This record gives sequence, structure tokens and C-alpha cells, in this order.
Amino acid sequence: MFRRILIANRGEIAQRIIRACRELGVETVAVYSQADADALHLRMADETICIGPAASSASYLDIPSIISAAEIADVEAIHPGYGFLAENSHFAEVCRSCKIEFIGPDAQTIADLGNKSRAREMAVAAKVPVVPGSDGPVNDEATAAKVAQEIGYPVMIKASSGGGGRGMRIASNEPSLLHGMRAAKAEAKAAFGDDTVYLEKFVEKGRHVEVQILGDRHGNVIHLGERDCSTQRRHQKLIEESPSPILSSKQRDKMCAAAVRLAKSAGYHNAGTVEFLVDNTGAFYFIEVNARIQVEHTVTEMVTGVDLIQEQIRIASGETLRYRQKDIVVRGHAIECRINAEDPSMDFQPSPGLISLFAPAGGPAVRVDSHCYSGYRIPPNYDSMIGKLLVHRPTRDEAIRSMMRALDEFVIEGPKTTIPLLREILEQAEFQKSQHDTKFVERFLATGTSRTAGANNAQTADSAR
Amino acid sequence: MFRRILIANRGEIAQRIIRACRELGVETVAVYSQADADALHLRMADETICIGPAASSASYLDIPSIISAAEIADVEAIHPGYGFLAENSHFAEVCRSCKIEFIGPDAQTIADLGNKSRAREMAVAAKVPVVPGSDGPVNDEATAAKVAQEIGYPVMIKASSGGGGRGMRIASNEPSLLHGMRAAKAEAKAAFGDDTVYLEKFVEKGRHVEVQILGDRHGNVIHLGERDCSTQRRHQKLIEESPSPILSSKQRDKMCAAAVRLAKSAGYHNAGTVEFLVDNTGAFYFIEVNARIQVEHTVTEMVTGVDLIQEQIRIASGETLRYRQKDIVVRGHAIECRINAEDPSMDFQPSPGLISLFAPAGGPAVRVDSHCYSGYRIPPNYDSMIGKLLVHRPTRDEAIRSMMRALDEFVIEGPKTTIPLLREILEQAEFQKSQHDTKFVERFLATGTSRTAGANNAQTADSAR
Repeated sequence: MFRRILIANRGEIAQRIIRACRELGVETVAVYSQADADALHLRMADETICIGPAASSASYLDIPSIISAAEIADVEAIHPGYGFLAENSHFAEVCRSCKIEFIGPDAQTIADLGNKSRAREMAVAAKVPVVPGSDGPVNDEATAAKVAQEIGYPVMIKASSGGGGRGMRIASNEPSLLHGMRAAKAEAKAAFGDDTVYLEKFVEKGRHVEVQILGDRHGNVIHLGERDCSTQRRHQKLIEESPSPILSSKQRDKMCAAAVRLAKSAGYHNAGTVEFLVDNTGAFYFIEVNARIQVEHTVTEMVTGVDLIQEQIRIASGETLRYRQKDIVVRGHAIECRINAEDPSMDFQPSPGLISLFAPAGGPAVRVDSHCYSGYRIPPNYDSMIGKLLVHRPTRDEAIRSMMRALDEFVIEGPKTTIPLLREILEQAEFQKSQHDTKFVERFLATGTSRTAGANNAQTADSAR
Repeated sequence: MFRRILIANRGEIAQRIIRACRELGVETVAVYSQADADALHLRMADETICIGPAASSASYLDIPSIISAAEIADVEAIHPGYGFLAENSHFAEVCRSCKIEFIGPDAQTIADLGNKSRAREMAVAAKVPVVPGSDGPVNDEATAAKVAQEIGYPVMIKASSGGGGRGMRIASNEPSLLHGMRAAKAEAKAAFGDDTVYLEKFVEKGRHVEVQILGDRHGNVIHLGERDCSTQRRHQKLIEESPSPILSSKQRDKMCAAAVRLAKSAGYHNAGTVEFLVDNTGAFYFIEVNARIQVEHTVTEMVTGVDLIQEQIRIASGETLRYRQKDIVVRGHAIECRINAEDPSMDFQPSPGLISLFAPAGGPAVRVDSHCYSGYRIPPNYDSMIGKLLVHRPTRDEAIRSMMRALDEFVIEGPKTTIPLLREILEQAEFQKSQHDTKFVERFLATGTSRTAGANNAQTADSAR
């Protein structure tokens, strides 16, 4: 096991990783930007190093600064968390060349899977079903039109280097295809420095279901069941749950087997997620692999009892997987709500600043992962997620009731948060019956009947389609 | 199911009951004393009623005030929590005469089990092993000396109406017996208004293990495994865990069967606990029944997944038990630490007052039950417990590591708390190997080597023996 690890991240995931390290008896080095000097988790770290100013580009994304800190603090490994450098294959490569273990898959695996059209080819090779689409990038408009004609409208234009919904457009006819391609390319160029795009059939009324994978460096790969992340707004997950309420056990087995097959064929090690789209006939299609720990790994932890961050660290240190597939038993139902400091009535504009009172929910069935506390000032520089609220109960209905109760008692005074909106989503019959799809929240907001988001979002939702 | 319930308690258990009610869809009426007007759980209640001044005798123990509140608020039932009126058979009787359901066993059952010598007789009748002792009260010193001679020293003098360690003395010879009897009688008279005492053989190096019972009004009784509460100081539990690390599965089955037998023969319904003492040969002896929910019910909730407070309410409303014995599966290991606002370096003197920062532990495996928040002022009028910190992991070793981590990150600024002492106890090899008994903490404090309690307790511990 490692003696000492650097955590190249901030917020709740930095704190989450420190927790895992402490339970493993591993020392921690927390790096932070000047905007994060008051972070509570810094108290828990064995050493703290300021790596730069608030701007991520000069701190959490600054590879030389992080590597310097790692060398000064004499760590054996770096945990990248999610976001920032977590899926940066160059960073993984630099770590290796500095003889520091990168807690995640190999740089080459990250690079291969990070390229969406290459990942799609790998899925096809592993006999994992993919959404009908262009096999590889489409470079010109004529080819795009031809491919779209073949697979049938509506189609989705996606950036090869994309993620988080950026560089994506839906087109339902040839003019919108050509217009969308130009827009997607421009957005992809700006966001990822790569304007390559490809086409896929747009699956309507789709559900987002993903499989958690753990693989060691010795060729063992297991899955830890699936998560249903269909409650999204503009491709951002709001609520995640496990297991997926829409899968039969036969579909579940098939999907999980496909994910393991892909991970094995890619030589994948450490934690990863294989994402699928499930259409309204129950057929599933590969979307992409997230070659890192995800925000929502927590719901899998609750239903399986496996500490995924501890396992990541064990695997990176060279240990053989402690679990075989048969050891993984999914029990009960877990739900996670992401709590964002945003104002739903103002088009979800971020609401940073002082939290005058932070009194998290507690009691039975509840887990809270948050770096916030009373008197904490949310810096305006980073994403708006300020906490994850989870519940675990024997059934989905009980879990929904526990989550409503927990949202009701969670007190955050100061910033606006998404708590009231999450509460409202849980009340909707469509969610309660699990008849929702990935566009459900946008449709709900578009009705203008939301008590918390109000009528303001009606037009927003329109433009979001 | 009830439409509306009154909660005749305060602090974390009042909040715990409100949580259960909200998940069941039952309205809540919270009563509070003037000292508790700032309690956070009052925000969660559907109605709040001030029932009197700070002194418990004029508020939480004032039966007419509570019954008036119940009638004004038109509730169908009262949940008494633990402490205060929870085991007051007169209160249960008054509720019944006012046509308000008392959420607990019948008044007669409470009265029978509340009388320790009667409870002992009931145990004997149900073929539950009891500690050798006087069969019934001993009224005069000559009889006491004769009985003590028969069962053999050391013996324990116990108040028939006792509880929480009050009215208890250990005697290792006749002079200390006679002196101890006088002291115990005086203490019992003052505390319970009843100076009746009885004798039991004092079990040295004993462990405190108790079985959780649930019974409905239709004759069904099940157990939910046991809890080991051997980590105590002066008969006050500090750390509880489930399952007990010292029981073989055969002993466990035998003890749980004995508890069910006693509960059935007593016509027990609702939640209750049968307490046993386990000696160093593994033999167990009945101590008493707690005819209420206990502070440490939470560890049982974690390992079984059963919400005991919800079940109490269901049972009181007349429902048939939703679980059969075979449905109860104990998974993993749960540990609870009671966090008290006390100063261990000053003989555990209460440390009430303003909590300037309250940032509870969180993340995987952790549950927090606390009514505190940043800015909360702990009133000096009630007991010093300000929260319960729990962890649930696959094994005891992992649970200990998670608990250490959770204690380390729990921030309470303002009052002195027992957090550092709890951390220290968890570090002791005796605890880690589960070789401790109910006198372990006092022995540890008596060494004067505790970093947190210091040398101050050496003499205290001496006098406590």
C-alpha cells in the first residue's frame, strides 16, 4: 500500500478521497488554490500545499504546479478525483514519467476511450451494441447528409472529444443537420481544441443507465451493477439511483456483461463507468466510457457496501481485486440528489457566497458528502455542486420517501440551492413511477408550473428542446 | 395508520421520531420547553406547542401539560422517546384513559418490567437464566447477609425501581454489604421514591449484551439480533455495537430465543430490549427489560435495515408485524459513539453553551443523529448527549477504522466534548481485540495515562469501583 498520496482536486471529492486514505492508513497531501484556503478538508490532510490562484488553469489544471507539489511532498501516487485532470491522458503520462502512480487507468486507455469515435470502434469490436451511426468521424457536410439519411432522422451530432453535453446537437432534417454541424464543430473547437464530430441516431425517450466497473492490473474485471441517471437537465445529472428501476434482471445481466467485455478488451484497470442509452423497447446502446471515478459512485457504494475510492487506491498500488463477481450483491435501493448552489428561478445561475447556516440532513438511511459548513464561502470560480445527499432503503418507494424527508430537513441558508427543485422532481408521478426519460426535467420546467423554477424556464426549456 | 402524533420528548430522539413520521406520512406535533425554543426539529414539525419552563418536572415530565397539548392538537398517539415519561406506566395509563395511543407496551407491562425484582421473577418463569441472587426484595440486613453468604461475594445491591446505575452498590464482604445497602436505599429513595433493594451475584469481567425485540398486538414477537454495550463508564454506555463480537452463533441463538420467550410470556408488544450480562465463561444472565426504544437502537437499524421507530408507530396503530424472524438478516458490523458535551479532564462535568461551529462527519458508512447545529446553544437543563455518530462496515475492524476517521473529522467548536476520549478508547488494544468488559473504561481512566482525561480521573475511577 502507498505511504502517501496527493489529491489533485477540491471540494467534496477531495474530502471523499481523504476519508478513504485515512481509513486505509495512507497519508494525504491536499493541494488547494488561493480560493480554497478555507476548505474544511485541509484540516484532515497530513500536509497542505497552495498550488496557485483561484483560476483552475493556474491551479487545479496546472500540471507543473501539481507535479512540483507531489515531488516536494514526496508522494507515491496522485488521485485526480473527477473533472480537472482526471481524464487527461497527458497528465497520467507525466505522472508515470515522474515515477508517481496515477490512480486511474493507463494513459493510453484514457486517450483511447476519451476519443468518442475510437471508443465506439472498441465497443463494436467487443460486440457491445452501439447506436446506429457514422462509423468514425464525419468530416464534410455531404457525407453527414448521406449518413443521416441512412440511419434515419432525428440524429445526434457529437464531438469526438466531447463530454458534459458540449459540442452536441440534435437534428431532425437536413437543414438542421448542416446548421447543427457547424455549431457543434465551433463549440467543440472552443471547448476541447478539436472540432471532429460524428453522427448517431437520436434515441427518443431514452434512459441513461451506466455500469460501474472495477478492474485490477492482473486482468480481473468485475461490475458493481448499474446506475440510472435519467434525471438530467441539459445533460447534467441531477438525480442518480441504483439499481435502475427499468431493467429486468435479464437486461441487467446482459448490459453488465457487455460492460465487462468492453473493459476487458480495453485492458482497463481501476474504476470506470460504461454508459448506455436504453430506448423505450428496452434495447441498450453504448454511449461512452468514463475513465475515472464519477460523482455518482456513491449510490453504488450504498447498494453494494464496497468503498470504491479505497478500491481504486488498492488497485493502483498493485493489489489484486478483493472481490469476485459473486461477492457483489446489490441490496435495496439508493438515490442521490446533487445539491447545487444555483437559482432555478434565474435560469440556474450560480449562487456562490457565504453559507450562513449549513445543517445537513441526518438520521436513518442518509449519507451526506459535502465539503460545506456554516460560515463557508462558496467561491465563484468552480462548479456549483456543493453536496450530494444520498439515501438507502430496502425499496425505491421507501428511498423516495426518505429522500423527500431528508431534503426537507436540509438547511442551507445564504445561497440559493436546487433543494426545492429536487423535492419537486421527486413529487412528480412520472419520476415516482419511473416513467421519466432524460428530457423529463426539461419538459417539466417547460410547463412553467414549477413552484421553484417558475415560468422563467419555459422559454429556456424550449430552446433546449 | 395514525393521522397525527405528538412527540413527548426533546433533542435527537424528538428529531428521530419526526423523521420516522414524515417518512410514514404522519403529521407531527412537537412539544418543547422554554429552554428548547431554538431546537431545529421544531422547523420540521407540523405544529409546535410550548409546554412549560426549562425544568423537566414542569415540562417534559409534566403529564397534565403534555396531555393538554395532545388534546389541543388533536393527536391520535404520543411517542414518548426514551427517558422522561417513556417508562412511566402511569403516563401510559393516562394516555389510554384519554383515548390517546401510547406508543409502547401496555401500562401493566411497563409496571411489571419496571419493577426489577418482578421482572426477575418473570424471567425465571420463562426459563431465562438469571444471576444467582435474592428471589425478590431483601428488606432487612440480617436476611441480606444470609443471602449474600449463600450466593457468595462479591454481590451487587440493586434498587428494585432503579436504572442508569443509580441505587447500585457492589459489596465484597459483610461490612461493605451493610454499608452499601444503606447507601443504595437512600439513593433509591431519593431518585425513585422507592427504597426497595435486592441482591445479585456480582459478575466480574462481565459484558453487557442486549437483544432488540419487536412484538405486535397480535402475539407476534421477533428479535433483531443483539447489541454489545460493554464500553461504559459508571454504567453509562459510551460505545455500542452490533453484532456482539464475543458471541458464537450458538450463544447468540440461545440468547435471542430467551429474549423472545420472555417477551412472549410477558405479552410484550412494541419495541423493547432484554438486557443480559455475559460472564467470562460465555454464560449469560438476564438483567432487565427496557420497555421503550433505546438510545442505541440505531446500531440495530444499520445492521438489519429495519427502521425501528417506524415499526413502533406501525405496531401501535394496530398493524401486524411486517417482518417474520427469517426476514431479519444481520449484515456487517455497526458501531455507535455517544457524543456528550462533557469535559473528561474535569471529571466529565457537563459543558453546555454555544456551539459556534458544528460540522458533523459524513461520507461513506457514516450516520449522524444529532439535534445540534452551528449557533445552537446547549441548554444546561438536560442530559449532556448532543449526538450519536454511527458507522456501518462489512467487518468490525473496518468499522473501527471508519469510526476513527469520522471522529477525527467531526468538528464541534465551543463546548468540550467526549470526541477525543472516544477516539482514544477506540485505539486501545483491549477494545480493538474486544477483550474489554464493562469496567474497561474506568480501568483505563484510572491509569491516568489518557491524553484527554488526564491524571484527574485516577482517583475518580478508584472511588467508582
